[in-house]
Amino acid sequence: MSDVPEHRRAVIAGIGHTEFSQHSGRSPLQLAAEASLAAIRDAGLSPADIDGNVTFAMDGNDELAIIRSLGIPELRFSARTRGGGGGACATIQLAAAAVESGHADAVLVYRAFNERSGHRFGQPQVAPNPDPAWNLHKPFGLDTPAKIYALAFQRYMHEHGLTNADFGLYTVVARDWAATNPNAQFYERPITLADHQASRWIVEPILRKLDCCLETDGGVALVVTRAERAADLPSVPVHVLSATSSQIEHGHEMFAYYDQDLGEHQEAAAVGRRMYAEAGLTPGDIDVAMIYENFTPVVFLQLEALGFCGRGEARDFIVEGHIGRGGSLPVNTNGGLLGEGYIHGMNNIVEAVRQLRGTAPNQISGAEHVLVSAGRSGLILGRRP
Amino acid sequence: MSDVPEHRRAVIAGIGHTEFSQHSGRSPLQLAAEASLAAIRDAGLSPADIDGNVTFAMDGNDELAIIRSLGIPELRFSARTRGGGGGACATIQLAAAAVESGHADAVLVYRAFNERSGHRFGQPQVAPNPDPAWNLHKPFGLDTPAKIYALAFQRYMHEHGLTNADFGLYTVVARDWAATNPNAQFYERPITLADHQASRWIVEPILRKLDCCLETDGGVALVVTRAERAADLPSVPVHVLSATSSQIEHGHEMFAYYDQDLGEHQEAAAVGRRMYAEAGLTPGDIDVAMIYENFTPVVFLQLEALGFCGRGEARDFIVEGHIGRGGSLPVNTNGGLLGEGYIHGMNNIVEAVRQLRGTAPNQISGAEHVLVSAGRSGLILGRRP
Repeated sequence: MSDVPEHRRAVIAGIGHTEFSQHSGRSPLQLAAEASLAAIRDAGLSPADIDGNVTFAMDGNDELAIIRSLGIPELRFSARTRGGGGGACATIQLAAAAVESGHADAVLVYRAFNERSGHRFGQPQVAPNPDPAWNLHKPFGLDTPAKIYALAFQRYMHEHGLTNADFGLYTVVARDWAATNPNAQFYERPITLADHQASRWIVEPILRKLDCCLETDGGVALVVTRAERAADLPSVPVHVLSATSSQIEHGHEMFAYYDQDLGEHQEAAAVGRRMYAEAGLTPGDIDVAMIYENFTPVVFLQLEALGFCGRGEARDFIVEGHIGRGGSLPVNTNGGLLGEGYIHGMNNIVEAVRQLRGTAPNQISGAEHVLVSAGRSGLILGRRP
Repeated sequence: MSDVPEHRRAVIAGIGHTEFSQHSGRSPLQLAAEASLAAIRDAGLSPADIDGNVTFAMDGNDELAIIRSLGIPELRFSARTRGGGGGACATIQLAAAAVESGHADAVLVYRAFNERSGHRFGQPQVAPNPDPAWNLHKPFGLDTPAKIYALAFQRYMHEHGLTNADFGLYTVVARDWAATNPNAQFYERPITLADHQASRWIVEPILRKLDCCLETDGGVALVVTRAERAADLPSVPVHVLSATSSQIEHGHEMFAYYDQDLGEHQEAAAVGRRMYAEAGLTPGDIDVAMIYENFTPVVFLQLEALGFCGRGEARDFIVEGHIGRGGSLPVNTNGGLLGEGYIHGMNNIVEAVRQLRGTAPNQISGAEHVLVSAGRSGLILGRRP
């Protein structure tokens, strides 16, 4: 357990987002401002109450442009998290560190982009990458996330005798959740495994189009404050029971790519161990799991690394119905990043908050503990402290 | 005063840096690794003890490349600070938030670049800037920091009847400190005001070459941990009595550029108020001040904003000898960013630590409290908690 006193611990007090689309027709700054204002209002606060912010290092929106747009007089804490969506939960960790240490009272966390109509992450990278390892791969044709990740996923397939159709089992479940979530881009559009198998190859024989997250335009925001402050606010506070992250020496992008063992998501395992210990919970205590999926196989790797099933057992865990409607561990009840949309993983945190408030479109009755995993960062959120 | 218990509060336990030069002949990654290893050893730790990191959002060194180079097994906290050197002290604030909240035990803070032999910040900006305000200025020729800042400095000159020669008064003092600091690029090269006035115009009639910081190749690193942990380490801990930052709604780059009143550094004033309150100190309690100077006039603005003298009085404060040898408030005893070198302001924090350890080349006898100001972020460091 954390040694921060309970009244000082972080809660998520507000959530907000824009629509998720293929073409927003507005600037990323506008999207960030809309989502932020919605989250601030949802928390029962005004822009003048915000005194801290967190976003991604790669965010094109400058903080000064954000506060100028929203009318926030001053930020006294401002932080960014490294890299891509693997850092989604680390944004909440940074905000929690700020409020728990007293460096800020109310932290606005946001991420907004036109990731479909503007710069698409899935396209071949031309500019040099900050991580030299990326640049070493490029001459050999590994110039997109799908190609780089697929190489590692292939080892997992080999170890457990899986084919691409097995990954499609997850897509079918996620699209089923999305079909009844009006926020989802794939609202009312469930699919069958045959549909998955009919989608075109992105990296044969590993990833098809329906294994990939939805490049999305949109914005998401959250407001983090202390438990003692949230007690005076109108919204139902969601308690951050644990927030942590993991960058591992053998890592690349989101996982230990250079390690001997590619069959385990070591960052997720490390994050899971720390989270369960800090929250005093076990995998069996988790009611809903929100699991980052830029590509379907990382759901398999995270289910195993987080202790929801044994190594190599994720396929059977899905086949047995655990992650779908009525299952023991509903996963990505918003439809996930390939069903609802991909706002760098941040929309999964919003869904977790909704589940704990009891306001999710696909509400899981009595949800007390939601785990959010972004691979190399994670959260356990609770309805109670 | 902070409500974080004393034993949990942040200390700086290690410092390290490379040489400061015009041409390092090595990569920024190599420079970061050298400085980091020096800081870790100085703290009496090994790379395996580091579990958090902080750098600048614009740092080209990816965290995974850093930990791979140093042999750090895992980071469980990783953060970046927005923008340029104005965020120098915010790096320590983020590290302090991490250790004070328990999200990390030992945080490595680093900044390294080839800012002279590689990408020079002082050259006209060609690529679009994250802050749209920059891009609005560019068509009118405001395409370098010197030009943008000079426009605001001109108001300060007008208000107080100053000329460029008045700014040179600071340069003479800084170069005097640098002349006896072997780490300084201007070691053994003091100047007179006539030398300053003979240097070429950068933005006439506001800034000459000797009003500008030294574009520098090099790296700086620090290790931040908790007071209770530092007690077991061999180095003399330097206590973070306050660390805060300020992004203001009317701000641009480092200060409130769009405000009605350009004659006050509002961010520095806000940072100062918070720091003095948190540390329980007044300007009169500060023994040494390390003040960020990308350009000489910001020293004047910060001396005033931080309460060391009244508004418009910085020139006389300098003429009266307060900031030089034997003065009441020695300022930038390493020679500052235009005398020692410009590692995005981070070398000023290293000098502050040295003064409190009693190991500075230009040691101020009995220094108990050092204030470090980077304009929109600041620190008060103490020899005692």
